Amino acid sequence: MKLYRGTIELQSKDHRPDFHNVTEGVKKIVEESGVKNGICVVYSPHTTCSVITQECSHDLNFFGREYLQQDLNNIMEKLVPTCRTEGQYLHPGPKHIEFALTFPDEEPKGSLNTDAHLRSVFFGRSETIPLVDGNLSLGDFGFIYFIDWDQIRERKRVCEVQIIGE
Amino acid sequence: MKLYRGTIELQSKDHRPDFHNVTEGVKKIVEESGVKNGICVVYSPHTTCSVITQECSHDLNFFGREYLQQDLNNIMEKLVPTCRTEGQYLHPGPKHIEFALTFPDEEPKGSLNTDAHLRSVFFGRSETIPLVDGNLSLGDFGFIYFIDWDQIRERKRVCEVQIIGE
Amino acid sequence: MKLYRGTIELQSKDHRPDFHNVTEGVKKIVEESGVKNGICVVYSPHTTCSVITQECSHDLNFFGREYLQQDLNNIMEKLVPTCRTEGQYLHPGPKHIEFALTFPDEEPKGSLNTDAHLRSVFFGRSETIPLVDGNLSLGDFGFIYFIDWDQIRERKRVCEVQIIGE
Repeated sequence: MKLYRGTIELQSKDHRPDFHNVTEGVKKIVEESGVKNGICVVYSPHTTCSVITQECSHDLNFFGREYLQQDLNNIMEKLVPTCRTEGQYLHPGPKHIEFALTFPDEEPKGSLNTDAHLRSVFFGRSETIPLVDGNLSLGDFGFIYFIDWDQIRERKRVCEVQIIGE
Repeated sequence: MKLYRGTIELQSKDHRPDFHNVTEGVKKIVEESGVKNGICVVYSPHTTCSVITQECSHDLNFFGREYLQQDLNNIMEKLVPTCRTEGQYLHPGPKHIEFALTFPDEEPKGSLNTDAHLRSVFFGRSETIPLVDGNLSLGDFGFIYFIDWDQIRERKRVCEVQIIGE
Repeated sequence: MKLYRGTIELQSKDHRPDFHNVTEGVKKIVEESGVKNGICVVYSPHTTCSVITQECSHDLNFFGREYLQQDLNNIMEKLVPTCRTEGQYLHPGPKHIEFALTFPDEEPKGSLNTDAHLRSVFFGRSETIPLVDGNLSLGDFGFIYFIDWDQIRERKRVCEVQIIGE
């Protein structure tokens, strides 16, 4: 049994949730690993991001987002509305803002990503995908998406891939 | 450390979500594996299906569905209403329909399973269950359900089981 | 490759969902395991509990719950309202109550935790967290929470930790 680890660096934009298609990146790490059968964990260490598998929707909206992703955003906008001001959610409270401001270049509005924290837990931090004869078991139409729910700022993200098998 | 893989074939009906109780099937694969301690990943490669663990609800509605499953359906019907016509969701768009029609016997209404794609990601594609002394750690009342959210058509589905342990 | 297992015992209160911060407990089990690289599965065998990772919210409400947790509760209260009487949900039906009453000291209202069963499946039973150089990959601000959604009764719970790696 063998363990292999890889990471995929991502650049998220601000103003809306980002759906990063990481399928090719994960496939490349699987190939590098030499593991043929086992499991592949695709994981976000960030508490405002999620990993899902979903089909490709082909059509894009004006913002370059696939239709199915925008449908998901529309549902989440009703369930967990985008945070537009302090007081809309309990979080962030005064102690959290005080904590956040101990970091350089941080400003209070940088903590108004409550919606991203809440949305992300609905979809989980990871997907565990079987590896079968060297291939990720994604069916005929499955892709892996790393979702950055944080709309507050541009930032670099890391998608982790942990493989166990033989 | 040992790796073992098994699959369970399922037949889904149309017109409503299907909850397949796969507990006995998974237990059989665990027994075949000879693995006593480790992890058991129960997984759907289909992008309109989910795997959950839940208790048995005992009472059945007129359609043969357990009460707790119908309660979950009722909630999902509000959160992600059943797709009844094109235009209700953005997906499927014209390019996706064009892609779908490249497959034999496919017709446009076959892509109106947007609700199933969206519902399925809320519950994840898999559950990872500890194996302890040869038993799945499901508590006193836990069962494993493979949910097929797709209401469009009858079809065969595969539940994958990947076991790692010793 | 090595397998290690640990458990964390928890005491839940009644009347509201309980968020147990199990981060330190999991870290202790990781240390005991001696495993430096691999995966750590943090799991609930209970069908009314979930495991999530999330940041610490610092501010507490009058009930001692972190603000972000209360925000999540508020959303779930709308999506899956607290069960306050039989008939609010289909479950528990008469057969389930009959089954429940075969257990000692059980009374019908003890089965009115339908909301907890339903809420728990939205967040999954487990999180699978990469282990990297002896550390859980939780980012700078990540913590592990074991959520007991059951508001019906005080009870002991077990959080299971299954580690595979080297």
